[in-house]
Formats: sequence, C-alpha cells, structure tokens
Amino acid sequence: MTRQLEDVLAARIRIKPFIHKTPIFSSQTLNRQLGCEVFLKAENLQKTGSFKARGVSNFLATREAIADEITTYSSGNHAQATSWAAARHQRRATVFMPEDASPAKVAAVKHYGGEVQFAGLTTQDRHDACHAYAERTGAQIVPPYDHEAIIAGQGTVSLEILEELPQFDALLLPTGGGGLCAGNAFTIRSLRQTTRVYACEPTTADDARQSLESGTLTAINFSATIADGTRALCLGDRNWALIQQHVAGGLVADDPTIIEAMRDLARYLKLIVEPSGALALACLAANREQFAGQKVVVVLSGGNINMDTYSTLTAGEYAGSA
Amino acid sequence: MTRQLEDVLAARIRIKPFIHKTPIFSSQTLNRQLGCEVFLKAENLQKTGSFKARGVSNFLATREAIADEITTYSSGNHAQATSWAAARHQRRATVFMPEDASPAKVAAVKHYGGEVQFAGLTTQDRHDACHAYAERTGAQIVPPYDHEAIIAGQGTVSLEILEELPQFDALLLPTGGGGLCAGNAFTIRSLRQTTRVYACEPTTADDARQSLESGTLTAINFSATIADGTRALCLGDRNWALIQQHVAGGLVADDPTIIEAMRDLARYLKLIVEPSGALALACLAANREQFAGQKVVVVLSGGNINMDTYSTLTAGEYAGSA
Repeated sequence: MTRQLEDVLAARIRIKPFIHKTPIFSSQTLNRQLGCEVFLKAENLQKTGSFKARGVSNFLATREAIADEITTYSSGNHAQATSWAAARHQRRATVFMPEDASPAKVAAVKHYGGEVQFAGLTTQDRHDACHAYAERTGAQIVPPYDHEAIIAGQGTVSLEILEELPQFDALLLPTGGGGLCAGNAFTIRSLRQTTRVYACEPTTADDARQSLESGTLTAINFSATIADGTRALCLGDRNWALIQQHVAGGLVADDPTIIEAMRDLARYLKLIVEPSGALALACLAANREQFAGQKVVVVLSGGNINMDTYSTLTAGEYAGSA
Repeated sequence: MTRQLEDVLAARIRIKPFIHKTPIFSSQTLNRQLGCEVFLKAENLQKTGSFKARGVSNFLATREAIADEITTYSSGNHAQATSWAAARHQRRATVFMPEDASPAKVAAVKHYGGEVQFAGLTTQDRHDACHAYAERTGAQIVPPYDHEAIIAGQGTVSLEILEELPQFDALLLPTGGGGLCAGNAFTIRSLRQTTRVYACEPTTADDARQSLESGTLTAINFSATIADGTRALCLGDRNWALIQQHVAGGLVADDPTIIEAMRDLARYLKLIVEPSGALALACLAANREQFAGQKVVVVLSGGNINMDTYSTLTAGEYAGSA
C-alpha cells in the first residue's frame, strides 16, 4: 500500500464545503500547569461533534457509486458522521452500535435520520453484525478506520494545524482503530520530519503502544475505560502500517487522569469534550516531564457525551480561566 | 458626550495584542429549533473568560498614568479582567465583590493575583465600598461600565463580527450596567444603520427595557436571577445615552429559559457558558417569532461558572450536535 500526500490534499479540497475548519485554542493557565506550550485543536467543535465527519465525507465523495443504503459499525462518533453524511447524499443509513453505547451518540444518530441496531459489546460483535447485514441487504459499508479514503480524510486535521502553527515539537492523537492517528502521523511526517507524533490510548486499551513496542501488530482481549471512542482492541492493518512507520511512540492515561483533563478543558477553555476527546491532553498530563518546555499540539477528537454523564464526571471546583 | 467610531477602532488596535479574536459558531440543529439563522460570538472563549478583558485593557492603555494599586467593584467578570490586566501592568488589584459572588469568579480573581474584599449584595454596596477604599488609599478605580474607554473597548466585539459577517438583521447583547450593549449598539449602528440591536436582560432585572419603553433612565429595586453578571439595577449614564439612541428595544428571558439555552450550547456547540453568557440566546428563544427567518447574532458574553453549579444546572438529555 502506498499512501500519497496528494490524497490528503485532495481530501481537504473535496470535503471543505461540508466540514468546519476548527479553531486551535490555548490557555496560559494550562501551559503553566503542564510546563509546556499546549495547542488544542478543537475537533469537538467539528460537524457531528467529532473528526469522523472528515473521513466519512471523503469516503463517500470518492466512491464511484453510493448504494441506496449505507451501513457501518461504531461506538458512536463514526455512526453519527455516517448518518449525517448519508442524509446529505439522500441515502438511508443503518448503523450497528454496542449495547452500552452512549445514549447521547444513539440519540444523535437518530437525530440525523439514521437507524440504530445494537450488536453486542465488542468491535468484533458489531463488525460481524454489520457485515452480515450488508451481505443480506446489499447495503454499502462505510469502514470506520481501515480504509485509505477514511485515513486521508482524517489526515486533513494536520493540514489545518500546519496552516496556523508552522513550528511545533509534538503531535498527540487519541487512538482507537487508528484512522486519526495514521492519517495525521503520515501527513505531518510527510511535511515536517522533525515533529514527533504519539498515539494516545487509555491504559486499559493500549494495543497501539504494545504494537509499537513489540514491532508486531498486537491485539488486546478486553478494554474497560470511560473513553468509549478508543476501546478498539486492535489497530486496522492499513492504520498499523502507517503508524509503525511514522509514530514515535505510545502514551497512556488512566480514567481519573482523563476526567481531570475534561475538567481542565471546562475550567480553562470552556469546552465540552468527551472522554476520548480529552485523552491526548490526559496523556500529556501523565507524561509531562517528557514534553517539558516543548510546543505540543493535542487533538481534542470529539465532544459527544450525555449531559448527565458529563455533569457527573466533571462536577468539581473551578480554578481560573483561559 | 460625543462618542466617536475612531475611539472603537483605536481600542481595537490598542488591545489586539492582549485579547483573543473570538470565533463565531453556528449549528444547523439550533437554527432549525429557533426558526432563524443564529451566529454565536463566543466571548466565553475570551481571555479571562468574558468580554470584560476588552474594556479593562482599553481603559488601562489609555490612562496617562496608572497608580500602584488599582481597584474596582464587580459581580465577578470585570473583577477577573481587572485582576488579570493589573498583573500585566505589574500593579496590585483590590476588587470588591458581592458576598454571594460565584466561587469560580472569586477563585479566578485570586488566581490572577488580585485581592478580594466582600461588600454586601447590591451594586450600590460594592460601589460605595470601592469608592471609600479608593479615597482612603489612593487606589485608582477601573470603572465597570460607565466610562468611555470601557464602552469603546467592549465595542470592539462588533468590529470582529462585521469582519466575518457582512450582513445580518439583528444583534442581541446581554445587558447589565450596559457597557457591552452601549459600545456595540453604537459601533454596529455607526457602520450598518439597518441592523437592529436589542438589549437582553433577565425578566427580574429588566431596567433597560423599562428605560427604553418609558424613555427615561429607570432603576429597579431588586433583582433575583441566576444571571449574576446582569443583576445591575440601573444602566450607567453614558451607557443609557448610547442605548437610548441606538437600541431598538429590550428583550427578556426567565431563569428556566436561560438554563435551557445553557444546555443547548453544551449539546449542540460543546461550549460552556455562564447564565449571563447564555442570556441573549435565551432571549432569542423566548422571542423567536419576532426573528423568524432572520440572521441573528447573539453574543455569548462569558463562561465563568463553578463546575458544580454548571453540572447541577445542565444535567439533562442530549439531543444532537453542531
């Protein structure tokens, strides 16, 4: 598989009419707290509330034909993006989600007009149900991460970052199946070889870190974390090929650190971010010695969370502002 | 008093190095819900978490000399901005806040290095305590709203809006003492006579509406609302002069509508906004027939709120995204 930078540039031009160019925020208080200069790329403010709108938009725009019905499997953000994009293409969408999916994400899929079917708890469960459904009905599958058009779409995040920040030392990316990580590691390293890129995972779902350390694509058996968007048990094959080549290492953070990052983003940045969206900032906080004095970009990948859950997680004392 | 557009343009140039140019957001879901096209100017993402950073920065930059100590009185956001700006000018700041001030705002003032003194519950209480203190110590007062340099500084919000949105029908502004409202009503109407500007208040603190309807500056006796930034009992004299000339009318919203606006901003825009900051959106929701089909800009004036309070107010079901 050869991945070309042209694919990412073409994706940017192709999807620009449908997505937001999201802002990059900073906070002096957060910088002092972390001992480095942090730039937060706010993909929680993206259409559908996550970066997934990029990949799906690029995938559909590059198909020769789109079937009457499209389908996918997802813990939620990719499902929302697929349902949203299907409506734009005037197609039906049926999405397979885990039985413990965030009610916020289920509600949003329906809000965009998609139909939800629940299938087990693991990525494998919903993958199998979706593929059986596609075979039975002829629905076209929108792959969640292991596809070149999805990877190129997610890589457009980096093009926006490079326009605003010509120089920085490290890029930290939440990593589940690896679409965001692969696309942006490839893009950044193609344009700026000196920037180091890190795959960020929950401590209990560190398959990318294990793969990077062993040099072999490694799956885990089970993951329990509040970061529902990054519970994938294994990277995709195409994702792993790019991640192995371009990512400097894996970083992890535990759930309490993720919650603290969500609180900091509320206090200092006034941003609502879901647990997976706060993961890269949490990994920075958990590894701050490694980044002392550096310019670090973290991607806030999404903001889709039930307000009840959000309120319960973040209730706590305030300590300043941006 | 003659107010010149040049003062606002000069303020913009003067304060630009210290403040953020804040983004303007929109949400198709919110547009559908309100039946008009809404643009949200996110001053909750401003330095110190509110627009007040603009006025204070302009006030201090236009003084011939700044005393060793500066002082002010405020429910919180102006106190934070004053404390923040004092640190930049290497001055001490002592701020007089109400006994029921938001703990978030008190903490933030201290975080920026300011000293907090509590003085009663009303604007008059803290005004009197601050003036007595200034007389006793020689501290220089930073007026919260009734001053030309403050009004010009707040008016810079509109210059940023006009750069991004050349055409819109109405501008809705949260209104307490009237600095934000006066500065922006003047600026918008100087540049675009056809835009209508509305002063937005809590139902229980509608002194601007009463003043506009009677044609005479009118004070109220008492205000109870969760929108702590807009509890002022009366507009300032300079503010009233500009508001009377340039504002089309007053709009009000009650506390439950303000809370619903806060929830909508969390659900659809992923933004944390304090009650006063959600007030203009709440007034739009409460008066939506009046704005049907129009392009409406609402200013989200601030985002400083205790996370405990925020969580309690906004807990509820999610229903979509941007």
